[in-house]
Amino acid sequence: MTVGARDGAPRQRRDARRNRELLLEAAHEVFTEQGLDAPLDVIARRAGVGNATLYRHFPTRAALVDAVFRDSLTGTMDAGERARKAPDAWAGLTAYLEVVFRTLAADRGSNDLMTTHLRGVESLEAVHEHNRRTVDALLSRLRDEGTVRADVTTEDVLFALAALGRAVPALTAATTAPGAAATAEVAYAAHATVTAPDAWRRPLALFLAGLRTEPAAGALPAPALTAAELGEVLRELGPHRTRAGDRGPGA
Amino acid sequence: MTVGARDGAPRQRRDARRNRELLLEAAHEVFTEQGLDAPLDVIARRAGVGNATLYRHFPTRAALVDAVFRDSLTGTMDAGERARKAPDAWAGLTAYLEVVFRTLAADRGSNDLMTTHLRGVESLEAVHEHNRRTVDALLSRLRDEGTVRADVTTEDVLFALAALGRAVPALTAATTAPGAAATAEVAYAAHATVTAPDAWRRPLALFLAGLRTEPAAGALPAPALTAAELGEVLRELGPHRTRAGDRGPGA
Repeated sequence: MTVGARDGAPRQRRDARRNRELLLEAAHEVFTEQGLDAPLDVIARRAGVGNATLYRHFPTRAALVDAVFRDSLTGTMDAGERARKAPDAWAGLTAYLEVVFRTLAADRGSNDLMTTHLRGVESLEAVHEHNRRTVDALLSRLRDEGTVRADVTTEDVLFALAALGRAVPALTAATTAPGAAATAEVAYAAHATVTAPDAWRRPLALFLAGLRTEPAAGALPAPALTAAELGEVLRELGPHRTRAGDRGPGA
Repeated sequence: MTVGARDGAPRQRRDARRNRELLLEAAHEVFTEQGLDAPLDVIARRAGVGNATLYRHFPTRAALVDAVFRDSLTGTMDAGERARKAPDAWAGLTAYLEVVFRTLAADRGSNDLMTTHLRGVESLEAVHEHNRRTVDALLSRLRDEGTVRADVTTEDVLFALAALGRAVPALTAATTAPGAAATAEVAYAAHATVTAPDAWRRPLALFLAGLRTEPAAGALPAPALTAAELGEVLRELGPHRTRAGDRGPGA
């Protein structure tokens, strides 16, 4: 045990750093494909390390989620800053929400982060708070202009965005399927066949139009879904997640 | 084995009938609390029968879902029939969707059925088709009147209703929690503390207002969520369900 001990310490540190990088990379992939409640042992397996190593680096799921997404979320915060200062408040709100929805459509991990509240993920709380203040500031400007319904609250908008936002991955599943389908664990996109990557533009535009005191100019963006495409989207939405935890052999 | 054989046959039939009733009752409870992907062995256990008995009566999950919900779904179909004949098409559409959302809020089983497509559940396919035709007929009347945006399609409405509808249980979780919390398997409502049973009225009204060519008269119904209530609702929405199936010890 004493042989090579002096060389061993730096090597252990190098190994630890390498394992941490492998874990972050694997976690990003798995969270992106499966969402934030993906099994942690799948992540450890993909990183090529044991569960114990994962837990040594990231004692909680929240710590791992925070480390994986902290940087990528600053993009929406930057967009929020720009939107608050936009000369036209409607243009600012629309451009901001387009950045948010593009991120929501990009991967399930960011989608989970941005549409739900998970306790203990620091970067997430900052993003939620920043998002709330951006929507609040823009609504307040629109209210002063008289161009938004006076009875619409920040909470009305945030709830609707969460509800719509959670349905975005089903809308765009076809475009994320090729990468996802490359791994055996991921079956969620298996029967998605259609839909455009920007299909979220249409329900978002329809929602924003409903907030206005006067009808918005211009037609809805992006083509409407066909009946068959809607069927695929609804199948992709799948049944509600249970929180029961118990998923016995009968599941 | 031959003793009592002639009496045994009717008794076996009585037992089978009784088991079927117990299974339907337990399945209704469990689906209502946990949604349609609830573990089947939880249902068998609650009915006090073995898994083999469950599978003998209902060889597939779809067969069980169909038997449990076939009758209860006819209510929304009746409401659809009435709505199509309503003298005022907006009043008809609004009243119909209120019936639908009240059912969505009532239990997670009906919610899953009505907001997603599950293959092989016959009663479900009939309800989806009826719902599609009701929305289609009313939109067509509104388009003829010129009171709905000309570029809104039936698929736009059905997608938005699915997205909003799936968020309804989180909005109303507080009101369903007492019954649900009585069983050990159900943890989903554990941290819900607030929100009114008719909180869904507000996002539904806001969505319908957005479809109109002219602003709707009247303020939004139901009180707006507070920031704290919205936080609870978003936590209740939880992360996305994965379809991975693999929920190992790391989950």
